[in-house]
Amino acid sequence: MLKKIALTGDRPTGCLHLGHYIGTLQSRVQLQHEFDQYVMVADVQALTDYFANPSKIVDSLFEVVADYVSVGIDPELTTIFVQSEISALPELSMYYMNLVTTARLERNPTVKTELQQKNFGGEGIPAGFLCYPISQAADITAFKAEVIPVGEDQLPLIEQCNEIVRKFNRLYNTNCLKEAKPHLSKTARLVGIDGKAKASKSLNNAIFLSDPADVVKQKVYSMFTDPDHIKISDPGKVEGNVVFTYLDAFYPDKEEIESLKQQYRKGGLGDTALKSLLNETLQNLLAPIREKRENLNRDYLREVIFEGSKKANAIANETLREVKNAIGLNFFR
Amino acid sequence: MLKKIALTGDRPTGCLHLGHYIGTLQSRVQLQHEFDQYVMVADVQALTDYFANPSKIVDSLFEVVADYVSVGIDPELTTIFVQSEISALPELSMYYMNLVTTARLERNPTVKTELQQKNFGGEGIPAGFLCYPISQAADITAFKAEVIPVGEDQLPLIEQCNEIVRKFNRLYNTNCLKEAKPHLSKTARLVGIDGKAKASKSLNNAIFLSDPADVVKQKVYSMFTDPDHIKISDPGKVEGNVVFTYLDAFYPDKEEIESLKQQYRKGGLGDTALKSLLNETLQNLLAPIREKRENLNRDYLREVIFEGSKKANAIANETLREVKNAIGLNFFR
Repeated sequence: MLKKIALTGDRPTGCLHLGHYIGTLQSRVQLQHEFDQYVMVADVQALTDYFANPSKIVDSLFEVVADYVSVGIDPELTTIFVQSEISALPELSMYYMNLVTTARLERNPTVKTELQQKNFGGEGIPAGFLCYPISQAADITAFKAEVIPVGEDQLPLIEQCNEIVRKFNRLYNTNCLKEAKPHLSKTARLVGIDGKAKASKSLNNAIFLSDPADVVKQKVYSMFTDPDHIKISDPGKVEGNVVFTYLDAFYPDKEEIESLKQQYRKGGLGDTALKSLLNETLQNLLAPIREKRENLNRDYLREVIFEGSKKANAIANETLREVKNAIGLNFFR
Repeated sequence: MLKKIALTGDRPTGCLHLGHYIGTLQSRVQLQHEFDQYVMVADVQALTDYFANPSKIVDSLFEVVADYVSVGIDPELTTIFVQSEISALPELSMYYMNLVTTARLERNPTVKTELQQKNFGGEGIPAGFLCYPISQAADITAFKAEVIPVGEDQLPLIEQCNEIVRKFNRLYNTNCLKEAKPHLSKTARLVGIDGKAKASKSLNNAIFLSDPADVVKQKVYSMFTDPDHIKISDPGKVEGNVVFTYLDAFYPDKEEIESLKQQYRKGGLGDTALKSLLNETLQNLLAPIREKRENLNRDYLREVIFEGSKKANAIANETLREVKNAIGLNFFR
């Protein structure tokens, strides 16, 4: 039986970290066995944000691909490609842009939230940013993706895509575009080592997959725990304690963690012992990833995205041909 | 010396008529000797308006190309190409969309006027329509056009384009994009045969270049003149008299027209005599165009736009390569 097509991706704006690992990377390593998986390095979408700072994207692109391969996303099973190499995507966007009003884009909850966070302010909203949900619909439909692994916050983008699909198919009397279904990821977002917010590069509170062992250790030992837990014998708080959050996420033996939590709450378990356990856990997780990463050279990574983009282009061009046919734009065929 | 590049185009939403002839076609026949001229059949731009009725565009496309060639736009001198065949154009648009705010687009006087005329109403403004000035900037810059033959009402679109050029070149530290200059056409718009508004297909008040002789005659004889000019001996009004407007536009001997106007004002010149003169004038103009048109077959026209689009693609792809290089998106080169 043919596998269903799944599409995911990341904006390449920095190396990937443990938050990405539990959020999406880990599940992609599994999904590539269930689905015909496409992973897009969304450099064009990243430019809607970072148009004034493109080197951030350019410099990150190969790092992100290295992260993918080193965690076990297998180029033999997963098509890893670069958005800016797929010329059919902006062409599809252009045709879809006629089917979506600016008012509809402004009502999109994901766009609304992001606009508040980004604060384009007095400069106004760039047209490219407002229209990125249309561009995402092009990404999804180009590959006839049926399954989109996403978090809850991304659901409005899939709804927007499916609206375009229905409107296009109705208007041009075709069924060449396919509706996509979200595949909700169950893992929560990972908090930063400061405990204040989501782990992210910009907040400098993340442990990167490519961090050397000593940096990982230093970050673990600087983690926010319970500021009132001064002496080992003091009772300590588990909630909001970043070391426990990370142990919950990465330590395989859940029962052992429960017993450690009880001990910590009562008093008698020191932060240093806990941090040592977490450090060992993360080093065990990251060592093989780091080792694999060190054996990846730029030529190999270039080959991976070259081949992936070639395959992605063939598929997206075929969809574009169908879309243009449906509209009637086939003057030479 | 290298000729400067000039770019013009039409949305293919119907056959071209005498209004187009004096507005743009006539001048293109001259400009092709002065400039390296590109004429774009703007099917993608037409879709921003007619997305719900694409057959109007598809059915008109070859008619418009036939109109071009039959009036004397020479495929040996002028590159005639089809917008939807040039995949670099939406790609360029996508990068430019990050540099223009939606507020700036809404302030564009040409867009404002058109929004009033079109009345998208309760449905809201399609994103494609709001963004079409960005798409036009892609058209202009793709060919490094230096000269854009336009009417006054199109000047804000060139200003918008040049804003994008300056912002792009500054932001990405390049000079790969060129500012364009308008080449203002001196001829006014032609009124419709009913005298009420601009000649247009939708108002059914235009004489088409492809109209058969008897249809031209019938349209001339139905022209609005002076409703108070009942008897030949009555004094007649020249202002607002469509027959005189058309004679002014198409009759070669301006002195003779002046003396006819004097005679008409005094009384003693009948509408039928005038219409007969205009009919003769237009038949003389249109007969060779019609004859040339009848000798054009679909295969030849397809060849014209195929070759034109091939040449246009090569140039636009080279510009896109420069644009992506400037941003830093050149992972395989």
